[in-house]
Amino acid sequence: MLAVHIEAIAVAEQGVVAIYPGWGPLGDQVQASIARILPIQDGKALFSDRVALPIRPMIGVIGTAPTGEAVPNGTPGPHGGNLDTVDVAEGATAFLPVFVPGGLLGIGDVHAVMGDGEVCGTAVECRAEVSLKIELRRGLQWQIPHILRSGEHFVLASGKTLDEAVRIATQETVLYLAAALKIPWEEAYMLMSLACDLRVSQVVNPLRTVRVRIPKFIFA
Amino acid sequence: MLAVHIEAIAVAEQGVVAIYPGWGPLGDQVQASIARILPIQDGKALFSDRVALPIRPMIGVIGTAPTGEAVPNGTPGPHGGNLDTVDVAEGATAFLPVFVPGGLLGIGDVHAVMGDGEVCGTAVECRAEVSLKIELRRGLQWQIPHILRSGEHFVLASGKTLDEAVRIATQETVLYLAAALKIPWEEAYMLMSLACDLRVSQVVNPLRTVRVRIPKFIFA
Repeated sequence: MLAVHIEAIAVAEQGVVAIYPGWGPLGDQVQASIARILPIQDGKALFSDRVALPIRPMIGVIGTAPTGEAVPNGTPGPHGGNLDTVDVAEGATAFLPVFVPGGLLGIGDVHAVMGDGEVCGTAVECRAEVSLKIELRRGLQWQIPHILRSGEHFVLASGKTLDEAVRIATQETVLYLAAALKIPWEEAYMLMSLACDLRVSQVVNPLRTVRVRIPKFIFA
Repeated sequence: MLAVHIEAIAVAEQGVVAIYPGWGPLGDQVQASIARILPIQDGKALFSDRVALPIRPMIGVIGTAPTGEAVPNGTPGPHGGNLDTVDVAEGATAFLPVFVPGGLLGIGDVHAVMGDGEVCGTAVECRAEVSLKIELRRGLQWQIPHILRSGEHFVLASGKTLDEAVRIATQETVLYLAAALKIPWEEAYMLMSLACDLRVSQVVNPLRTVRVRIPKFIFA
């Protein structure tokens, strides 16, 4: 796998959010496309006179090249891609499966700030300078993207529905916990239910993405 | 609506977690029912010799009586019910619609600790003593349960699929933000996308439950 260490994300001085008819779970109620530019100052994205959003810069698209047919940049999958996950942030390491010679890493779609779900289909989209360090890690048995951030371990899965993404994420997490802690599969399924958090990453790309947060104390 | 203030949750000295064939997203891989009793000591539920889980007591079932046909205790809905949401915890206030004279509040299904999703179908299920203060709040226009916890506002929705639950939760949240902040619907849809977090509550009851976390600073 590629281990992509995200050393820094420096965002530009403005970003843009937009809504479009048909985008997101309430897209049928959007009458017209509307865009709003947000100045980014002193660590905040200025949404309106009254609401300033503390920025939490993140990378929306990060992926290797999949095998077979080309995949549009807007789609997530086992290769990563448009994961739109807030934990792909400064200080985190993203682990991505390698499918083709060279891996062919691509990144883009930086957001100054985004809520889990990205429900209207956009975040504070902005230009950015990103510093990465990339390592090849042999021997990892992971089938889908994993992330390490501040000692927490995340497992990311995408599917046609959120329920399908949840099933894939749960499958990978239980196998990972059983192997990492050397416990039976049944025990790992229980432990995930008690200690790990299923979270929504995004509900707007052609496939939906969820992640499982495995807390630090499980490995203590 | 009823405003149910959760003043205290005192859990017993042990709890139980179990897996069953057919339960949860990996239920088809569970060969036999297995239960494990966890001692609860010094604020931790002892899962194994190596793993101790810090407890986070919560109420799984909290609801008023719906109109029409009776609803099983295991099912969530607009009346509340089996919401299995970790934020129904000490110090929180749950707001539940009133459908019948007297409201007919019922609670149960306390968990010493549970991860978001409750993927195997159970948490650390335990006896508990719960102290509540109940108020009637007239004039609130909420159609589904809301929760206030530590200044954060949560909107809870249940649906046949996670995607359906997300649509209902998003609909209610955008209407709530537009009314609370006196902003146009379109602006509220953008703001939810940028600042609010869609979270999974549970994926195992007959209906799935999600919640939207609205952070404090939006109201500052």
